[in-house]
Amino acid sequence: MPQVRFLPKEVEVECKSGTNLMELAADAGIELKAVCGGAGSCGKCQVIVNEGEVEILDQGNLSPDKLNQGYVLACKTEVATDVTIEIPPESRLSKHQVFIDEKAEEEDKLLTEEELELQGKFEISPIYTRMSLELEEPSLVSNAGDLERLYTELNRNRGSLPALRTPLPVLKDLAGHLRENDWQTQVSVTRVTEDYGEIVELNPIDDQQADYGIAVDIGTTTVVLELVDLEQGKVVATEGAYNRQANFGDDIIGRINFAKEKDGGLDRLHQAIIKTINELIDQAVESAGIAQDDIKTAVFAGNTTMVHLFLGIDPNNIRIDPYIPTVNFVPPLRAQELGINIKDNGWLHCLPGVSSFVGGDITSGTLATNISEQEKITLFIDIGTNGELVLGNQDWLMTCSCSAGPAFEGGGITHGMRAMAGAIEFFEIDAESYQVKYSTVNDAPPIGICGSGLINLLAILEETGIIGRSGQFDMDLDTDRLRETDYDKEFVLVWAEEAGIDEDIVISENDIKNLLRSKGAIYAGIRMMLQNMSLQEEFIEQVFIAGGFGHYINLEDALKIGLLPDLPLDRFTFVGNTSLKGARMSLLSEEKFEEVQEIANKMTYLELSAESQSQDFMDEFVAAQFIPHTDLSLFPSVTG
Amino acid sequence: MPQVRFLPKEVEVECKSGTNLMELAADAGIELKAVCGGAGSCGKCQVIVNEGEVEILDQGNLSPDKLNQGYVLACKTEVATDVTIEIPPESRLSKHQVFIDEKAEEEDKLLTEEELELQGKFEISPIYTRMSLELEEPSLVSNAGDLERLYTELNRNRGSLPALRTPLPVLKDLAGHLRENDWQTQVSVTRVTEDYGEIVELNPIDDQQADYGIAVDIGTTTVVLELVDLEQGKVVATEGAYNRQANFGDDIIGRINFAKEKDGGLDRLHQAIIKTINELIDQAVESAGIAQDDIKTAVFAGNTTMVHLFLGIDPNNIRIDPYIPTVNFVPPLRAQELGINIKDNGWLHCLPGVSSFVGGDITSGTLATNISEQEKITLFIDIGTNGELVLGNQDWLMTCSCSAGPAFEGGGITHGMRAMAGAIEFFEIDAESYQVKYSTVNDAPPIGICGSGLINLLAILEETGIIGRSGQFDMDLDTDRLRETDYDKEFVLVWAEEAGIDEDIVISENDIKNLLRSKGAIYAGIRMMLQNMSLQEEFIEQVFIAGGFGHYINLEDALKIGLLPDLPLDRFTFVGNTSLKGARMSLLSEEKFEEVQEIANKMTYLELSAESQSQDFMDEFVAAQFIPHTDLSLFPSVTG
Repeated sequence: MPQVRFLPKEVEVECKSGTNLMELAADAGIELKAVCGGAGSCGKCQVIVNEGEVEILDQGNLSPDKLNQGYVLACKTEVATDVTIEIPPESRLSKHQVFIDEKAEEEDKLLTEEELELQGKFEISPIYTRMSLELEEPSLVSNAGDLERLYTELNRNRGSLPALRTPLPVLKDLAGHLRENDWQTQVSVTRVTEDYGEIVELNPIDDQQADYGIAVDIGTTTVVLELVDLEQGKVVATEGAYNRQANFGDDIIGRINFAKEKDGGLDRLHQAIIKTINELIDQAVESAGIAQDDIKTAVFAGNTTMVHLFLGIDPNNIRIDPYIPTVNFVPPLRAQELGINIKDNGWLHCLPGVSSFVGGDITSGTLATNISEQEKITLFIDIGTNGELVLGNQDWLMTCSCSAGPAFEGGGITHGMRAMAGAIEFFEIDAESYQVKYSTVNDAPPIGICGSGLINLLAILEETGIIGRSGQFDMDLDTDRLRETDYDKEFVLVWAEEAGIDEDIVISENDIKNLLRSKGAIYAGIRMMLQNMSLQEEFIEQVFIAGGFGHYINLEDALKIGLLPDLPLDRFTFVGNTSLKGARMSLLSEEKFEEVQEIANKMTYLELSAESQSQDFMDEFVAAQFIPHTDLSLFPSVTG
Repeated sequence: MPQVRFLPKEVEVECKSGTNLMELAADAGIELKAVCGGAGSCGKCQVIVNEGEVEILDQGNLSPDKLNQGYVLACKTEVATDVTIEIPPESRLSKHQVFIDEKAEEEDKLLTEEELELQGKFEISPIYTRMSLELEEPSLVSNAGDLERLYTELNRNRGSLPALRTPLPVLKDLAGHLRENDWQTQVSVTRVTEDYGEIVELNPIDDQQADYGIAVDIGTTTVVLELVDLEQGKVVATEGAYNRQANFGDDIIGRINFAKEKDGGLDRLHQAIIKTINELIDQAVESAGIAQDDIKTAVFAGNTTMVHLFLGIDPNNIRIDPYIPTVNFVPPLRAQELGINIKDNGWLHCLPGVSSFVGGDITSGTLATNISEQEKITLFIDIGTNGELVLGNQDWLMTCSCSAGPAFEGGGITHGMRAMAGAIEFFEIDAESYQVKYSTVNDAPPIGICGSGLINLLAILEETGIIGRSGQFDMDLDTDRLRETDYDKEFVLVWAEEAGIDEDIVISENDIKNLLRSKGAIYAGIRMMLQNMSLQEEFIEQVFIAGGFGHYINLEDALKIGLLPDLPLDRFTFVGNTSLKGARMSLLSEEKFEEVQEIANKMTYLELSAESQSQDFMDEFVAAQFIPHTDLSLFPSVTG
């Protein structure tokens, strides 16, 4: 069987002749970019064949130059003989982004007071809890059964909470436990649904063992887990990792494709996320010095596709008109049903979604920012591949998803990339010489431009007159950085000799169009929600910008290019990973757990592709593809 | 290893030296009487060692004669070498009793109209049901998830029934199923608790497959199962068998002892009942020509000890003052949790009990006889080892258990036995010559006296003056049938030469005392309930006598001896196996299922050994140990 050697990691694996190179890399733990999920269309999984023979099924969009240098698309190449494969820097998923998210988390932790203010204070009453009870000792005149006796005392303590179920193993221990402990007991009760709970454990009254839960944000790219001491309401460990599904597609459409097109694709994606989460559990458990069995329950928040894949449910209908998910309100599941390594029989809860493109991450974020408890009309923005928006207050909530595309994540942009080492975050361009200065993540040699860099760049290009309001280059400018290729115009940001890659880092007119489409889609989405509620921009009293991406964008740039509505800067707050925060809150408070269900129930989903909306949306979308907008009166402070 | 040969069945088994003979017999499928559960006290498990050596741990109450003939108590004997063991007829459990119960069942079926009258008519609305639904097809403006769409339509059809849960496997199939079937579906829904149900299956709308349920009466001696077509409300097969636990103890106290004293005793008892039920399922499934998977749910009724053993819960506290069971309201369990061979994931329901000695068989009987829906004050009597009584009507229900002892089942009576082949059911005694005529079950040579025979005998002995009202023999009578042994007085009913056993069949004065104690306990129980409700006998408007035993007693005899209250004969009805009937009704009607829960909730349990009752009970008990009673005014029709 052929031997395959991956560089620079020096990983060697054996495989059958005819094995797909991308899948082999994934199995070998090599993290390759794979935006399109192996469709051959994104061109991000380029690798270099240094030695040996491969079978190239499709050359994709590789230039003749690159093909000559041995570049192939891993997803469209099969192993033929022993080969050595080099993974160039631009095709690697580095660990950096996860670190950034963790940094963001740490920053959040410094903001605890503000955070509490933001979220509204809530009482710790976790969905898994212990109660110490002293039962009436039975007698000939008080002869209820042991279980009924326990229920009576529990109900006296709990108020009118839902009915309880007691599983057989607990029932088998009950009589002995109560008698050995003189009718004093510490009962662990867990929420299952709104309608019923379960008695999970019986312990002696002096048992001091802490119970833990996990809150997990299942992001398309990154999965972050918090290990929470349920009684104290304290986070005792935070762990983050790439979603192992990233090997099979970078965004949700890529994943859905992979699930549909590849043999066993759905199961591989399902296993990948389970493995990711279990690894995070291992790390958290080790870091906190507890046992897996001490984790009694879990709350997950993720977009609708992530939740479907987590459950092993085919997500295919999510991307087919009329975009119907199998489930928004996911029933609780036992840990062993999914193979999640917490205590056996522990219950797993997924926060509810609203539609195929507004998932539990958004309802969780709405909970975390306390929108539904405030009078203030609030706009919540989570920008990823889709921009998800929530508008509302305690009286009403509206949500929509605008297909912003992956431009702000680097997708569809010649040198776009995520915020990893070597990504340019910040530019300065001299208005006369057009000389470019920049700074990169980790000060590494530049290899591309991340989202915040792209927003900044767009603002500067317009400011310096390199592009006009419609995004077209002024080709009359006197600089060799502006040039025309066979099929596009481009501006050189970093010459190849300075770059961490073997070519000039550029921004093309097509890139700019993609960025304008993305920012236009988001702004048009905001306008559509306002229009449906007959509101003006100025009625928005606060704007929450969620997600790791949000942390790094320059607000003034975002207003300048017309991505965000032109409101006073003090109305904007970066709120971090609210998906995770909402999951944690739901773990720690039954009341909050109910509230997020109510949020999902009462949120009106505005389907922008529905007949009643689509023409207005197209009009808004077209008008928003200018810098900052066709209608300058919408941006008085910018155009001032 | 020693070989053990059991006669007359010619079963040969191998075992370790030192193996207990009774346990070996049980494992080899030899059904031995074992009233005391292997304590060595009942003397019913006598076997004859024909060849080979055994180790006798305890001779029990065996006479020197019997010991000389090779008799040993199987429960107190261990195998030493190769042996041949003969099981004499009186130690065998024959199949007869089960056939009798089946005969009773058949008789019941002829009484359908009366039965319906008795039970109150009810609508068939089974706890597992299918609904054909046509869902609204999704669109961009009707974009609920598949599951939420299904729930909406289900709720429209069901009215305001409890919340539903959908297990993961169904969820995984949902999207494909709905789309393949053009949004038409047949949904199977099962009740789990009052608070929630579950979606179990999705089928195409034209699926014609029938769903079945089983109703099971778990009797201490006999287990009877009905296979029921849920949609048509029709019993398609009835199967009965000995409870395989009988090998480990004849009555509940014997079983509880066995569970406590023997290694793995609880598990062996648990496995024995599971095996019994699974064998009945096999038979029913074969007889009806259906598959095990077609059985979707099950309802069980049994006394509290039987239910504990069915669940594998230690029943020990049931027999220890203050007699507290682990559970009266048993939570629903999955079939696979107990290893019951119906459809995987099918729910098992045990009807609720009231106390350690009033179990789900009695609440089921109360349901089946519709007591709680009628104005008429009704007395319900189930005579077994304990006599369980219910008194009440639609407004109130009281229940008690009187430790009647096993006399009417043949326990503690020299030649007492169950109603098997050779049991004397009926006597005639000539008032002058004291000659005895009798008839036996199956006209077999007489080997003992069953319960109905004992009641009849007691009445006749008093009528003919052989005993007085206090049960003592008139030793002055001129007959050689009356004789005195070393330790008792006795009357010979069948001389050895006529009998199917090698000795005279007799009734001793001690036997008569035991019978009077049993009937006295039941009558005193009835009196106590009346007294607690400040009622007189004549207020009882109807009396239901439940159980196989009831079918064969002569009512006039029962009144004559003062077992039953002296009411017009037309107020008495034999109602057969109401435990089974109530289970069947609960299977076929959600409303009845709820009703039996309410019955158990509202029944007041009168604990006769409680301080407030015990003195009065003792007075009543002592007064009732006369024929018919100390207070003759209570039996005007009998005493004329």
